[in-house]
Amino acid sequence: MDVLYAPRGLSNVVVTSTDIGDVRGLEGFYHYRQYSAIDLATSRSLEDVWFLFVEGRLPDATERDRFAAEVAPLRAIPADVLPALRVTAMAGATPHPLAGLRTILSLVAASQDMAPTYGSSDAQRRADALLVCAVTPTILAALHRIRTGREPLEPRDDLSAAENWLYLVTGTAPEPAKARAIEQYLIATIDHGFNASTFTARVAASAGADVASAVCAAIGSFSGPLHGGAPDRALDALDEIGSPDRAAEWVRAKVTAGGRIMGFGHAVYRTDDPRAVLLRSIAQELGGDLVDFATSVERIVVDTLAELKPDRKLYANVEFYAGVVMELCGIPRSMFTPTFATSRVIGWCANILEQSHDPKIIRPIARYAGPAAPQAVPVA
Amino acid sequence: MDVLYAPRGLSNVVVTSTDIGDVRGLEGFYHYRQYSAIDLATSRSLEDVWFLFVEGRLPDATERDRFAAEVAPLRAIPADVLPALRVTAMAGATPHPLAGLRTILSLVAASQDMAPTYGSSDAQRRADALLVCAVTPTILAALHRIRTGREPLEPRDDLSAAENWLYLVTGTAPEPAKARAIEQYLIATIDHGFNASTFTARVAASAGADVASAVCAAIGSFSGPLHGGAPDRALDALDEIGSPDRAAEWVRAKVTAGGRIMGFGHAVYRTDDPRAVLLRSIAQELGGDLVDFATSVERIVVDTLAELKPDRKLYANVEFYAGVVMELCGIPRSMFTPTFATSRVIGWCANILEQSHDPKIIRPIARYAGPAAPQAVPVA
Repeated sequence: MDVLYAPRGLSNVVVTSTDIGDVRGLEGFYHYRQYSAIDLATSRSLEDVWFLFVEGRLPDATERDRFAAEVAPLRAIPADVLPALRVTAMAGATPHPLAGLRTILSLVAASQDMAPTYGSSDAQRRADALLVCAVTPTILAALHRIRTGREPLEPRDDLSAAENWLYLVTGTAPEPAKARAIEQYLIATIDHGFNASTFTARVAASAGADVASAVCAAIGSFSGPLHGGAPDRALDALDEIGSPDRAAEWVRAKVTAGGRIMGFGHAVYRTDDPRAVLLRSIAQELGGDLVDFATSVERIVVDTLAELKPDRKLYANVEFYAGVVMELCGIPRSMFTPTFATSRVIGWCANILEQSHDPKIIRPIARYAGPAAPQAVPVA
Repeated sequence: MDVLYAPRGLSNVVVTSTDIGDVRGLEGFYHYRQYSAIDLATSRSLEDVWFLFVEGRLPDATERDRFAAEVAPLRAIPADVLPALRVTAMAGATPHPLAGLRTILSLVAASQDMAPTYGSSDAQRRADALLVCAVTPTILAALHRIRTGREPLEPRDDLSAAENWLYLVTGTAPEPAKARAIEQYLIATIDHGFNASTFTARVAASAGADVASAVCAAIGSFSGPLHGGAPDRALDALDEIGSPDRAAEWVRAKVTAGGRIMGFGHAVYRTDDPRAVLLRSIAQELGGDLVDFATSVERIVVDTLAELKPDRKLYANVEFYAGVVMELCGIPRSMFTPTFATSRVIGWCANILEQSHDPKIIRPIARYAGPAAPQAVPVA
């Protein structure tokens, strides 16, 4: 039996093939199916791109209307799950929106008697995936509103997914410019190559877990500090800096202390992060003091990092301007990462559906490195 | 950048090294740390072996008492989680004990403000792991009792972990022989090499997820039909067979129809599954008609499979006698897999603790195999 020793963390190990998309780090380019993700964000609706992830192609006008009419009613939290919202929202001393989402989605899996992906039909898995994606924003917003002393709002079928998200979180129907800004952010963050949470979802799906179970697994990885993509950290950094003339000094102190600069640098991109470029332009269209401040700080941080770490190319990443855009759209900071989760769940589900066509379980092995076995068990 | 194309499902790919244990399929042997798992099951208590998983060595008498006194109070479900039990137990048309466990454990993570494994202290992670393992049986038994129209029982600190499990499920303090039988089953199933759920737990932990989040991820894989280890299926097969003289015919019909024989064959063992050997002997000690029936059927099934599939060596696996032992101990069939979960969670947690010492995220890559990108996005 030939054994293959993989690089640490399975780095650069190809574990599967996918039709969903890819990231080309050297080019600063990523795509969903055959389309540039950025082009999709600037020219299409979230529902269009969601359809693309589920069906593998963009919808025509009829399909778009049918799809929107299919998913909007799925936003409602199932009635037998509702009584768990309050205890989930209030658990613990600090807010845990991702743990709350996982708790309620886990309950939705049971409430809906979701079938294992292994052995169920394509239609069943598709229906479960649409439900999970449609109900995720409602769950996150309901937990937030309860936690902040308000009643959850009913999702509104007459709003688009992006509009509905802003409505559920802020309590008011959003201005069109803000709804479109958030919609572009959501489209641009649905998927991003084979990231850690996506891989986790596929591992669980490869064992045959139901769609919601695999998403719950993904949320575990997504909640880990090494996963990346927490836009609130970048805005916290902006707060710490306070004014552009302190930015260079702040970066120097951080780097000297061995700390990371949140919002800068990426594991894959060796040039501009195309999501940061998109979000900068969206932020600039919205305009305002925060945007001017952020763009000044970005320039100074990039220049200072280039001086301190000339061998590395560190640019603003998706986190940096995502936080700025969300702040401008009235989303509270504690809901930045949950906002990201409402789009990424569409990517997870597409990966789960794709994985479910491969009946081979993902199960590597480990090399035992402890003391030689067996040794006699000492008498108790 | 060198890319490595791994075999499908990462089969025989070494992803990490471990000191926790190993399976040697050709020898029919598996071990925890440096000790034979079977020797541990026949000579030690569950608490002793749990300690071995957590601390890396067997306890002395003082340590054993201290450990038992440390974990027994952790069996109580946190007060702020209790209100979620009923809605979780009653969700859906059919019982979902694993989804229920995941839902409540996910809530425990929030209730206890569990910190990410990345960046937290060894002591914090250890405490979280002990809590998760100690509370898991209480959760599963409580959901079962509510679902079957009874009130959950308070865990009893004066009972061992195995005794307490039988007490919580059946409602009466168990006979010593039955408690010891279940204790040996639990010890023998804590871990088994790098199985799919264990790998899932480690992937989530590698992103820095907290202990309960990583366990929730593992439960996703564990619930998948390709994971294996569902002892109720083997007992269902015994029911179908009905009497030994129908066993050979039943096997022939199943194999001809392309079906799997539940309770027989294993991905790794090419000889007797040592867990099946242990459990057969435990069952025979308990004795009774079911045991006689099962041993007769085992012999006939093995012989018939040898005749039908001479190139494969198919023996009874852990599922076959596990179901028999649990039935003899008064555990209802719907609680067989949950019983397995109460021991396996100890293995998951040991793996999560070990993984948390490696700050490298487990993130392989995928090969894009769809149409060439980018293509122009058609006008909507």
